[in-house]
Amino acid sequence: MPNENLLKQIEFIKEIDKIKYIQRRTKLLNSDRNENDAEHSWHLAMMALVLSEYADEKVDLLKVIKMVLIHDIVEIDAGDTFIYDQNKNHENTEEELKSAKRVFGILPEKQASEFIELWTEFEEGTSKEARFAKSMDRLEPLLQNTSNNGGTWREFDVKYPTVYEKKKVIKKGSAELWNYAEKLLDASVEKGILKK
Amino acid sequence: MPNENLLKQIEFIKEIDKIKYIQRRTKLLNSDRNENDAEHSWHLAMMALVLSEYADEKVDLLKVIKMVLIHDIVEIDAGDTFIYDQNKNHENTEEELKSAKRVFGILPEKQASEFIELWTEFEEGTSKEARFAKSMDRLEPLLQNTSNNGGTWREFDVKYPTVYEKKKVIKKGSAELWNYAEKLLDASVEKGILKK
Repeated sequence: MPNENLLKQIEFIKEIDKIKYIQRRTKLLNSDRNENDAEHSWHLAMMALVLSEYADEKVDLLKVIKMVLIHDIVEIDAGDTFIYDQNKNHENTEEELKSAKRVFGILPEKQASEFIELWTEFEEGTSKEARFAKSMDRLEPLLQNTSNNGGTWREFDVKYPTVYEKKKVIKKGSAELWNYAEKLLDASVEKGILKK
Repeated sequence: MPNENLLKQIEFIKEIDKIKYIQRRTKLLNSDRNENDAEHSWHLAMMALVLSEYADEKVDLLKVIKMVLIHDIVEIDAGDTFIYDQNKNHENTEEELKSAKRVFGILPEKQASEFIELWTEFEEGTSKEARFAKSMDRLEPLLQNTSNNGGTWREFDVKYPTVYEKKKVIKKGSAELWNYAEKLLDASVEKGILKK
């Protein structure tokens, strides 16, 4: 007699393989190869693991890691939205919620609810864990763009005030990391890879 | 005044980007595209998250997730060794230990020690967390190969007894998952995608 719950969980595990094909705009470090959502999510989880001591408030690290591991799964149906896209709002789209319900809905009910709640909490950024998770999500492309001679900033002609506005989210999770990020942004302007 | 520890941590975060280029032999589900180590590590973390209820002994989930997130970082210097390679032992190589010491050694001392210990514990498979983490590591390619008409089993002419021997590691972490895995292996033989 098969374990019905296990079969659902295996189906979910197979379904989420698809995020390995979802390309982000940002490139790997010192590279012109686009990063995909699975690589990105792994890197954020590693960053959370390494940097959690800098969270302004002590965070539940497992919760932060869960959030970053699952945060882009909604893109299986909704696709990746470029953070500097001027026509489409990046966050809390109807499409993403619909996707969350479909993909997490493959899981047994209790687990599906837990994941949808975690994803919603991350999107809303209201808890200390969500704020720190979002800091990771903003810091990674900063490291990538500075290593790539400006990367997507140059490619899409995004200027300092817009970048600063987006990166400020880091401050909500960690004053220490924001301090570091601000210095990186200033240095990027000085180097001419980010225009004022 | 820069935070010395933070600078080391950022250097580590940049260094580990390299695992996104390390190709495994196994292919993505229903695909002929090789999986890389970052994608693989993300997928194992998701599997641990979804399947932890099946661990024979209650595990510290954060510890399991840490293990699977970092387990392939040693391949930055040592490279990926194919599990069915007949000339090279997959586990506990000198090269891997050297790589662990170099890459994790980029981190501040306390964190470096923690990661080297975690990686060693995973490799030795002595704790319940290491056993469950290894179950994940063996289960993922089973799902991949069965979805790919035999995948690496067919490509490298690996037969049932050898596969069974490698997959038995799943049993050490979870009787329930091993029960599922055995059925998948039997079905693969019946379908003719795994030779007896």
